[in-house]
Amino acid sequence: MPTHIGSHTIELQSSPSLLGFAAVGSKKESEGPIGKHFDMISSDALFGQKSWELAEGEMQKAAAQKALAKASLAPGDIGMLFAGDLLNQITASHYGLRELGIPFMGLYGACSTMSQGLILAAMMVEGGFARKAMAVTSSHFCSAERQYRFPLEYGGTRPPTAQWTATAAGAVIVGENTPSPPYVRNVCIGTIENKDVKDLSNMGAAMAPAAALTLKRYFEDTGTGPANYDVILTGDLGEVGCDLLGQLMEREGYKLEGKHADCGLILFDKETQDVNAGGSGCGCAAAVLCAYLLPGMRSGKINEVLFMATGALMSPTSVQQGQDIPGIAHLVHLSTKQSGRPEVS
Amino acid sequence: MPTHIGSHTIELQSSPSLLGFAAVGSKKESEGPIGKHFDMISSDALFGQKSWELAEGEMQKAAAQKALAKASLAPGDIGMLFAGDLLNQITASHYGLRELGIPFMGLYGACSTMSQGLILAAMMVEGGFARKAMAVTSSHFCSAERQYRFPLEYGGTRPPTAQWTATAAGAVIVGENTPSPPYVRNVCIGTIENKDVKDLSNMGAAMAPAAALTLKRYFEDTGTGPANYDVILTGDLGEVGCDLLGQLMEREGYKLEGKHADCGLILFDKETQDVNAGGSGCGCAAAVLCAYLLPGMRSGKINEVLFMATGALMSPTSVQQGQDIPGIAHLVHLSTKQSGRPEVS
Repeated sequence: MPTHIGSHTIELQSSPSLLGFAAVGSKKESEGPIGKHFDMISSDALFGQKSWELAEGEMQKAAAQKALAKASLAPGDIGMLFAGDLLNQITASHYGLRELGIPFMGLYGACSTMSQGLILAAMMVEGGFARKAMAVTSSHFCSAERQYRFPLEYGGTRPPTAQWTATAAGAVIVGENTPSPPYVRNVCIGTIENKDVKDLSNMGAAMAPAAALTLKRYFEDTGTGPANYDVILTGDLGEVGCDLLGQLMEREGYKLEGKHADCGLILFDKETQDVNAGGSGCGCAAAVLCAYLLPGMRSGKINEVLFMATGALMSPTSVQQGQDIPGIAHLVHLSTKQSGRPEVS
Repeated sequence: MPTHIGSHTIELQSSPSLLGFAAVGSKKESEGPIGKHFDMISSDALFGQKSWELAEGEMQKAAAQKALAKASLAPGDIGMLFAGDLLNQITASHYGLRELGIPFMGLYGACSTMSQGLILAAMMVEGGFARKAMAVTSSHFCSAERQYRFPLEYGGTRPPTAQWTATAAGAVIVGENTPSPPYVRNVCIGTIENKDVKDLSNMGAAMAPAAALTLKRYFEDTGTGPANYDVILTGDLGEVGCDLLGQLMEREGYKLEGKHADCGLILFDKETQDVNAGGSGCGCAAAVLCAYLLPGMRSGKINEVLFMATGALMSPTSVQQGQDIPGIAHLVHLSTKQSGRPEVS
């Protein structure tokens, strides 16, 4: 049975295991700092499909299939599948994953989807609703640009605060505890926060307050702080949002320096890859989790992690209508240890 | 602990209670067969807001607040909130519900959202993740028309197979078992199915195969059939989809006659209200559940119910690109009894 800690944190007593995970990307992602760790790279951003939208679905399917293969599992072994993406009506997930035939629950959490799906999958296992559950998400630069901004052919320029949507997908399989790290230990579900940011080209700033609130609640609930973790990995605040998060947390008495990393600043090399404020998109956090963080935990290089994907919950219509951009952040505490909380400093 | 029955059904051993529920609608809904049962009707479809999209969010908030008030609960009593709608990036949920401050998980399941949210909320309670959880959804004729079809000002005509998107919202609060029916007894999560239907004006036909498959799995898993239930309530297949579901189930040896009702055919009077094949939209199933079915169960008039909201998982883009329309159906067995399965005939 899960245990409630403080106001917002839930401890998963059974420490569900991450049994399999995989990341898929395209050319630009392969040229970034973690490019060589992807399970699959397609230099063709269409992934053999006729449209960017179908290509994005194909990436999700490939990530799911790779994760299954790495865990020596078949789709029929998975009791529940949580997936979502940035496309209207999350069609990358619907069309990409339908042939797996797994009981399906569609999510929309913008770029927080990887945390959201991972939390739900882990809760399904902890609660006995599924022996194994999977979380999948993706983003695609080309499908996102034409839906959210301009068709690529238009050649719009991008302000320096803008982030670059990753063409990537990630899939994680959570299962009943086996002596195989990493484990999901605690989860902290976010609330919708807004601080009057209305600039679609500055979503990092819109999401930082939500990230700060979730992180503060988690630290207070568990009596831990940055010193208890090897890394606090947000996704994707980008450069602007990271600065803001640091400032907001410092006001609360927490210094993140040396502990905080952002998926948007790991996936791409900001200096050489022309991504402005960093990477973004559901696929960015998913790929950094599956290609970089989880392998690092499995090999024992990283042991205590807070993974907190963040989402900007506006739509082009809501912004055109003058609304601000609400943000959300869901936190997952991953550990190579099965039980016992990290030592309180 | 939940118990797995057969291939796809999960029995919630604790029989979580539906503690509160409420339905909100507009003028056309108030003129339909169940109009007088709504908790709130606004004759102004803008609900005092500046846009249809904000109006839809306002409906969700009103439904959530009414459900809380009817259960004598405050937002702080709710551990988790599951919500979604038909708008791109589910902004009715994000903007409408943000001020409640409840840990939030966004869903996209098209018109299946009420089943999906209810299942997740009930599982959160059964699994001990929340003492109380809420599911909310909505649809709005005007926001849906301009996003999915034509702006109202265009005056497009509608084919007879088309359904009418309800302007309505519903909210349900699930809590730990109290001796207060109705109870959530079994759930059956659907898979994504497709049968080559590509006609956006005939979504009932696109969803019927998914509905038939979920219902067949549930009957097989539980060893029950239509005779064991007072009503099998789908939402929203409309007239065309209902005929198809009846035919598909008859092929499998199940006669639904006299037991099957569809939310799309309950919310509106097809003969007098100019809704073509019936009502649709997340809000249709939600409103019929909250204004009609659940009050009927609480008063003891209806005792054993299968509630199965269905979703069509395409987007305008996917259909324009020539893709077929995938469907999904999630089933919830609601009962006025706390334990023991319905007697097998």
